[in-house]
Amino acid sequence: MARAQTVLAIDLGGTKMLAALVRGTEIVDTRRMPTPREGDPAQWLTALFGAITGWRGAYGHVGAAVSGIVDDGHWSALNPKTLDIPDRFPLTRTIEQLAGVPVLAANDAQAAAWGEYAFGAGSQENMVFLTISTGIGGGIVLNGRLLKGLAGHFGQSRSAEWPDETLEDRVSGHWIAKEAAPHQSGATARDVFAAHDQHAWARRIIETSAERTALLCRNIQLALDPKRIVIGGSIGLAEGYLAAVERALEPVPPRLRPSLHAAALGENAGVIGIADLAERQQNLRENQR
Amino acid sequence: MARAQTVLAIDLGGTKMLAALVRGTEIVDTRRMPTPREGDPAQWLTALFGAITGWRGAYGHVGAAVSGIVDDGHWSALNPKTLDIPDRFPLTRTIEQLAGVPVLAANDAQAAAWGEYAFGAGSQENMVFLTISTGIGGGIVLNGRLLKGLAGHFGQSRSAEWPDETLEDRVSGHWIAKEAAPHQSGATARDVFAAHDQHAWARRIIETSAERTALLCRNIQLALDPKRIVIGGSIGLAEGYLAAVERALEPVPPRLRPSLHAAALGENAGVIGIADLAERQQNLRENQR
Repeated sequence: MARAQTVLAIDLGGTKMLAALVRGTEIVDTRRMPTPREGDPAQWLTALFGAITGWRGAYGHVGAAVSGIVDDGHWSALNPKTLDIPDRFPLTRTIEQLAGVPVLAANDAQAAAWGEYAFGAGSQENMVFLTISTGIGGGIVLNGRLLKGLAGHFGQSRSAEWPDETLEDRVSGHWIAKEAAPHQSGATARDVFAAHDQHAWARRIIETSAERTALLCRNIQLALDPKRIVIGGSIGLAEGYLAAVERALEPVPPRLRPSLHAAALGENAGVIGIADLAERQQNLRENQR
Repeated sequence: MARAQTVLAIDLGGTKMLAALVRGTEIVDTRRMPTPREGDPAQWLTALFGAITGWRGAYGHVGAAVSGIVDDGHWSALNPKTLDIPDRFPLTRTIEQLAGVPVLAANDAQAAAWGEYAFGAGSQENMVFLTISTGIGGGIVLNGRLLKGLAGHFGQSRSAEWPDETLEDRVSGHWIAKEAAPHQSGATARDVFAAHDQHAWARRIIETSAERTALLCRNIQLALDPKRIVIGGSIGLAEGYLAAVERALEPVPPRLRPSLHAAALGENAGVIGIADLAERQQNLRENQR
């Protein structure tokens, strides 16, 4: 295997932009900026590259992880309400013009899935990654390949019983805070976790969310039979949550029961994953020459 | 690619056993027997091989497709109520002793998925296969690889809103017949399809089943983003059913909408698929020598 090279990893979300110099699993340097409320992705990226002109020459390729859908280097919003970008924005081409080196792009949860697969709790086995925080994201690695495009958007699953909601609307940090409002005005998901030792209502909210996550994991096991399901995100990794999911899975027969693992790379999974994907693509290109 | 060889394909279900000599997509000869009500799979297989002693020498390897779970050549029931076999029955070893040639085994819906992928409506693209008949089975082929083990058991999905049922219990031919009973005593799923031009109740039952299948397809698209979802089975291919599923998907935004295709190989998909899988494994072994 080739020695790890330095990669520029970019993480573009609805609220923040992150640039990081990454070597293997090591984050060498980072820059953060809020995502501008105005303008389009080309302007946001120009602003971000303006902040890292000093890094020019330090990296040979770029990996870009973004919220939404990436198809053949084009970026689209899954839900235009949460991410206001033009449809099929030419993401890799725009970054290539700013960086002057090759670019690989993927969905941010897919990138994090790859990070956990290659260096974290996925142990390079068939795996599904779920990140449970404000929303729910996911990624799938099977037979050593990351599934791209829409793949992993488990949080967007729907049911006939709640036609106007997604699974994410009924599990995530946003839902936990909403359910807590009648009990404690202005409570955040973090407040609910803090209250769960003292208050039955807080315990019940967390257990309901965990039971729904457990059911999702059970259905994923029947659909894909991964060796591992890796759970990350601020809710997924909050104290007691994973244990509550495990409890809800106890009645499931052993062969059908998912093997759950806490994510190991924390909030760095995405940049580590996208940097590794970009490096692998670059090695592939060089071997083909 | 190597020229198609003759493979013995076996399909073992809860009610019938089928042996077929298969060359590529051509079914050269077949034998059918009811699955005995008594005894164990070793005895059933001995009976089946007793009926095809005349084929000895005509085939160089065997593919076996079975209801339930196949892990490393061992066969287990997903649901012991519908299939009464010992846990982890040594399927490939038992057949190897009877046939004297190498054996590959897989779940029957997975085998049919591979048949449709390689020779049918899957067009050798990333695909999910769903067979909707008395129950619901499925299979997944991604990046040219069939997913094994539990994978594809979409019919076993559960929801918090119907804790004692599976999706299959709410969609399949069995459900259609059950819903029809109050309207027409003893009606089969076939009767409901025959009645759907005349009777609103029949139309409503079929549409409800189709809407649930549509929702499953939508959720599969978000989870796996296959190029195609191939629908087979006596219900899936019944007149008007696929069109009703398509209608239910019309409101879905184009990028999220599944591309549905009617299965092309009919009831032969399983034996054609398992024969091809067995042949490919044999070619792989020979190339490694």
